Amino acid sequence: MARRSGRNRPPEGTLIKRISGAPFINRKLATYDILGEEGLCLIERNADQILQEVGMEFHDDPSLLEIFKEVGADVQGVRVRFEPGMCRQIIQAAAPKTFKQHARNPANTVEFGGNNTILCPSWGPPFIHNLDEGRRYATLDDFEKLVKIHHMIPHLHHSGGVVCEPVDLPANKRHLDMLYTHIRYSDRPVMGAFIGSERAMDAIEMAKIIFGEEFMLENPVLYCVSNTNAPLVMDGNMSGALKTYAKYNQPVACTPWTLAGAMSPCTVAGTLAQVLAEAMACLALVQLIKPGAPCLMGSFASTMSMQSGAPTFGTPEAAKMVLVSGQLARRLGVPLHTVGTLSSSKLPDAQSEQEATWGLLMAMLAGANLVNHATGWLEGGLVTSFEKTMIDADLCGKVASFFEGIDLSDNAQALDAIAAVGPGSHFLGSAHTQENFKDAFYMPTSADSNSFEQWLAEGEKDTAQRANEQWKSLLANYEDPGLDPGIDEALKAYIVNRKASMPDQNYF
Amino acid sequence: MARRSGRNRPPEGTLIKRISGAPFINRKLATYDILGEEGLCLIERNADQILQEVGMEFHDDPSLLEIFKEVGADVQGVRVRFEPGMCRQIIQAAAPKTFKQHARNPANTVEFGGNNTILCPSWGPPFIHNLDEGRRYATLDDFEKLVKIHHMIPHLHHSGGVVCEPVDLPANKRHLDMLYTHIRYSDRPVMGAFIGSERAMDAIEMAKIIFGEEFMLENPVLYCVSNTNAPLVMDGNMSGALKTYAKYNQPVACTPWTLAGAMSPCTVAGTLAQVLAEAMACLALVQLIKPGAPCLMGSFASTMSMQSGAPTFGTPEAAKMVLVSGQLARRLGVPLHTVGTLSSSKLPDAQSEQEATWGLLMAMLAGANLVNHATGWLEGGLVTSFEKTMIDADLCGKVASFFEGIDLSDNAQALDAIAAVGPGSHFLGSAHTQENFKDAFYMPTSADSNSFEQWLAEGEKDTAQRANEQWKSLLANYEDPGLDPGIDEALKAYIVNRKASMPDQNYF
Repeated sequence: MARRSGRNRPPEGTLIKRISGAPFINRKLATYDILGEEGLCLIERNADQILQEVGMEFHDDPSLLEIFKEVGADVQGVRVRFEPGMCRQIIQAAAPKTFKQHARNPANTVEFGGNNTILCPSWGPPFIHNLDEGRRYATLDDFEKLVKIHHMIPHLHHSGGVVCEPVDLPANKRHLDMLYTHIRYSDRPVMGAFIGSERAMDAIEMAKIIFGEEFMLENPVLYCVSNTNAPLVMDGNMSGALKTYAKYNQPVACTPWTLAGAMSPCTVAGTLAQVLAEAMACLALVQLIKPGAPCLMGSFASTMSMQSGAPTFGTPEAAKMVLVSGQLARRLGVPLHTVGTLSSSKLPDAQSEQEATWGLLMAMLAGANLVNHATGWLEGGLVTSFEKTMIDADLCGKVASFFEGIDLSDNAQALDAIAAVGPGSHFLGSAHTQENFKDAFYMPTSADSNSFEQWLAEGEKDTAQRANEQWKSLLANYEDPGLDPGIDEALKAYIVNRKASMPDQNYF
Repeated sequence: MARRSGRNRPPEGTLIKRISGAPFINRKLATYDILGEEGLCLIERNADQILQEVGMEFHDDPSLLEIFKEVGADVQGVRVRFEPGMCRQIIQAAAPKTFKQHARNPANTVEFGGNNTILCPSWGPPFIHNLDEGRRYATLDDFEKLVKIHHMIPHLHHSGGVVCEPVDLPANKRHLDMLYTHIRYSDRPVMGAFIGSERAMDAIEMAKIIFGEEFMLENPVLYCVSNTNAPLVMDGNMSGALKTYAKYNQPVACTPWTLAGAMSPCTVAGTLAQVLAEAMACLALVQLIKPGAPCLMGSFASTMSMQSGAPTFGTPEAAKMVLVSGQLARRLGVPLHTVGTLSSSKLPDAQSEQEATWGLLMAMLAGANLVNHATGWLEGGLVTSFEKTMIDADLCGKVASFFEGIDLSDNAQALDAIAAVGPGSHFLGSAHTQENFKDAFYMPTSADSNSFEQWLAEGEKDTAQRANEQWKSLLANYEDPGLDPGIDEALKAYIVNRKASMPDQNYF
């Protein structure tokens, strides 16, 4: 296993250093728990009742039904029903509360669980948007640029997965190019392909090349998101990846994805019970496949417009659902996976940041251990915006700084400074300010706080226009973390071989 | 006292109804307390030490020094020093934990304290900004428009004070026109003039006309914000208004206004101790002038850029300071006054809503009882933006909905609906959805969640452009709450007489 030390310094004047030295956030502030014991027990009882009376369906893979049958679940056709408490017991008997995901650069290895939060880029959009070209289908070139840009942003901790969907490549082969691009241009942790066991196996094989087989088999190095088809279905594409990663001891985030009103009831309490039921059934599956395999309870619950049927994000209901999901995950004893700066806006404008700020802050207050889509998401996940990526990155830095909590040292108390300055004077030139000003405050990177006159002189740019310059500057100043040539060649050879063995498919 | 029932319905299709029936928010969710007992005691001890060793200066009004001398404070020149615990004791002996502020329409009367939050418009900007005209000096016409627009926004609870500074009127007379405009065009609670005792007396006299002298003398009907000149000074303009309103039993928000790094130490802990010291000295003054007079601990603490010296808002440090201020105010036993959607952006763009959302959410989580500047603030308070007013108003609705908490009724649990829909189906047409969809979710008013295609067809408008249409629609559909003609005449006569007695002054 060859590893290089990272050179992760941002270019001067564009983005500042990481908030803490660690390659993830360690929250010093408590979670914001909005539901009391009684309410939590109610949601948990309801989830048990759903699993007992309605059950969950596992499509396309009879082997899963056998697994459930063996432990005494009630399996009828593809429908699996569980006795109250059964899933919870299976999960709590084996699932680890904390685990690491290794990056090829050990300095970027992240730790899941506890008060740690790991922020990831946007995931899944088939379109990109930037101010120069507007909105268009995404390509591998965009993908590479986004990986490089994110690698240069100190406030992100994970290179992510489908930062955009490179639709210029065949649908059945592009997972190889995507993983290669992450590995080649970033040395942070990565996600593996998440659709079907075959693609998941490709990620496993490539991970063996990168980390060495022995290390890979014993340590989490790939992260997988496995969504349900709410309500109460898991299909073969999702369970295939889940099964493969679980078998290889790689972390799976079991994530019911639901828009309340369409895929779950149009109420917070109803949706929460369904989300917990789905998550518990899938987490139990992970633990039955491989006891002790790392896993996370996922929560991606938002709302839809009851006027138009459109998905809506950054809503009060989504906030309530993520906060309670955090409480439920902690009671279950597994880390929480959730989502960040979601927006249905078409542009990186006021709506996009009202929704993004709301969403990321709520995820953080929920005690999320991994936040997917912490940057860039627009249009309900159809678009990765280059400019919003930069604006959200600033927000990521802001939450990291906020969750550092309050310094109560003698220096921070500053009593001598207050006495020395005295009433009616100012602190600008005081010795205390001179000694502390460099690290005193978080320095925003996308905000302009200059005077109106200076802003005029600098071209009256709005936030998106400044962000446009910023991502170009990061790209221009991209620092290649390097990749061992032997590993690079081996990865390329694997990909060439695999592609040759695959049928041609259309591009969508 | 003549009062009319309000007709506060928004025009169809522009803004929806109030989140709850009440004319203010009653938070069902807890405050977010980030500092433990030890930390809070430390800040309180430090505030006491500041008041004992450094003291606070009260300029321009020897009568205040006499008041402090009488109760045993150490007065040297204009500097007043207090024994540890002295201010706290004076405050806790008399300050009410809760009180009402009456509106001329009783349906709009608000209640301070406990879990209640009252949201107010922007306050103080000499400029306005709108998409049609850009940025220019504000006028009384803008002021009237802003009062009318806010009156039509269901998510605001207070008509506020200087919604913009009408600089087309003489500086010494415009307070009369401002208060008249509030009273004439809104029937919500109002703020009184806050600079000097003479202007405050004008507000008192006008309030007597509106509410009747007897009622006015016995009930809070005017709200006053009294800022310190941090560090540790209160000048005659501010203490003059404080003294007048306190004497007349009208609520005073004693609000240290500080930019950490300039007006307080460049640390959160240092700033908090100074803020608490200043607030306690001023609150003690209120209680010494009139024991039992309603008062609030104010907190308006933000940061400055340590690169440029510019004020910065929506920062991690500002969030920490407001959250702890809430804890300190509750321990002191007085309601909390603070600030909301502040931004240093020049435009209603992504930065403005990233900062605004951060700020308002933190104020709410702090348990603010009144949030000043809940709408419209741009450019660090130099500008009231018509478009940002509408975008922030949506955020006000969103927080109101969020703080309603989680419905745990049988209907909200929706177990029957989940069973009836079953795995793999959808809830769109279910009986439960049909019965609940109208009130299921908060309906955003500034966000566009439609498809890209529909958004294109509707003109590719960003949030600000939609907001531009919204405020014009609210103005066009403005519903006059009416004002008793006798009161109207009496107010006008008072203003004419007062203006005639005043010298001409320049306009700034």
